[in-house]
Amino acid sequence: MAKFMDVHSGFYGVTPAQLNDAHDADLKIEDDEGVHFEQAWLDPEEGKVFCLSTGPSKEAVMRIHERAGHPTTEIYEITAEV
Amino acid sequence: MAKFMDVHSGFYGVTPAQLNDAHDADLKIEDDEGVHFEQAWLDPEEGKVFCLSTGPSKEAVMRIHERAGHPTTEIYEITAEV
Repeated sequence: MAKFMDVHSGFYGVTPAQLNDAHDADLKIEDDEGVHFEQAWLDPEEGKVFCLSTGPSKEAVMRIHERAGHPTTEIYEITAEV
Repeated sequence: MAKFMDVHSGFYGVTPAQLNDAHDADLKIEDDEGVHFEQAWLDPEEGKVFCLSTGPSKEAVMRIHERAGHPTTEIYEITAEV
């Protein structure tokens, strides 16, 4: 199982409630791909969302995000953290 | 106190030990600006490091990173998280 950070752009003015809804939409279907979304951070001013997840591959994470309605192609595999 | 995510680019091939050293360099001087670096995640393949911090301003976080030897101008203020 690998760890990933993905980045969404263009999410200007997203509210905390919308972030919760988007995260819930991921959680609802994440088991289909063996993915788990751990945390997400929002900057609505710059339109950025960062999501930390675990899963078998970048593609699996991206498929869940896409099916949940917020696709992104910007995803990084995390091999170390402090 | 606000929360921030900053992004470093071009850190290709950085090792976990180098990530630790960089994080330690931040921790050593972060009190000077009332900043605290909570976590950092590394993708050495794509050369990315993501740092989560708290502090009084983006500029305070950026000053610590710069003095520690790894400046970045890409920083986002986090107003919501899940």
